Amino acid sequence: MDSAPRKGEQTRLAIIECALEMASLQGLGALTLGTLAEQMRMSKTGVFARVGSIQALQMDVLHAYRARFRDHVVDPASAAPAGVARLRAMFGYWARHVGAAQGSGCFYLSCASEFDDCPGPLRDAVLADVLEWRAALERCVQQAIDCGQLHASADTRQLVYEMAGLILVLHHDTRLLRAAHGAERSARAFERLLATFKGEVAAANAPVFTLRRTIHRL
Amino acid sequence: MDSAPRKGEQTRLAIIECALEMASLQGLGALTLGTLAEQMRMSKTGVFARVGSIQALQMDVLHAYRARFRDHVVDPASAAPAGVARLRAMFGYWARHVGAAQGSGCFYLSCASEFDDCPGPLRDAVLADVLEWRAALERCVQQAIDCGQLHASADTRQLVYEMAGLILVLHHDTRLLRAAHGAERSARAFERLLATFKGEVAAANAPVFTLRRTIHRL
Repeated sequence: MDSAPRKGEQTRLAIIECALEMASLQGLGALTLGTLAEQMRMSKTGVFARVGSIQALQMDVLHAYRARFRDHVVDPASAAPAGVARLRAMFGYWARHVGAAQGSGCFYLSCASEFDDCPGPLRDAVLADVLEWRAALERCVQQAIDCGQLHASADTRQLVYEMAGLILVLHHDTRLLRAAHGAERSARAFERLLATFKGEVAAANAPVFTLRRTIHRL
Repeated sequence: MDSAPRKGEQTRLAIIECALEMASLQGLGALTLGTLAEQMRMSKTGVFARVGSIQALQMDVLHAYRARFRDHVVDPASAAPAGVARLRAMFGYWARHVGAAQGSGCFYLSCASEFDDCPGPLRDAVLADVLEWRAALERCVQQAIDCGQLHASADTRQLVYEMAGLILVLHHDTRLLRAAHGAERSARAFERLLATFKGEVAAANAPVFTLRRTIHRL
């Protein structure tokens, strides 16, 4: 009788895992207890008994993805020494996770698109996770500055912003264009970005003047 | 009686415009003749009589957005002189269109996320439009190379790929993070990118070696 609760919890986790796979393809909003029950070969009542409402399930799915992102990206990257080596590892594992053509891509990016216009707890949860990851990246950039590996005047948020852009276009091109070029193109751009922020590139701070021209003209 | 078909066409266009606004918020897949009829204060039969099936309407919505993108981005940018000036205009109008916080953002980017895993005519249509715009950007980069404004060895696809990344992160941060920093951050990064591809930055081709190290380690 001891194994009964454990088995129940295993079933619950299996349902959430299945829901994450379905939501990765069709969006969290498309999840229904009915389709999930069909996929799991369970009764709808059985699914409901394990996961409760669809709203509770959607939040569980987000938490499950959070754990997956931690396992695939955050934890392995943390093993690298603080500074540029860790920043490179963070970008590398993130890119590999997002660019995996056979996988579900980055669920945060799909959710960003699905919920950016939908205020509510799901949007808040996605936003919190995205901001937490950005903050971790910014801390890592700051450590690289502190130990003299990046230029003291480097704009940490600008660097992390541009890293995010390289991940977003990798995700976009891999999934919509089915293009294989993204991993190499993003890695190449990231290394040039690092070189710029190391201060090796003299022109790094020049663009501000031309930027103003651009804004005025448009 | 002459005005009857014209009025019918006007109604059809108004329905499509309304559908584009709804789809920008909830996705093309969420459109139904019922909700559209409610929004337009028409009968469902009346909507169906004007636009036909939901599939036909979804394609009309994409065509309507194509025309909007042409009006807001492609045509005004084409007025700039060929070369870097036009490339800067293409990026500037694109960024302004995507970053408009009050607007619906870039519908192609929402559709990319919605349909990347859904083979079919809608995915094909979005893909074709995205590739056409990328090709136009690449032609513009090539013109800038041909007239000596960008370095002869510049990788046109790499430059356009990185421009797309700066637009994607602008879209992401404006819509999910509700952050106002995107327009300036993307413009700053774009000007640095241009400087790199002008050959002003000596280190532009250096990163290839470190790139290989990154790939081996992961």
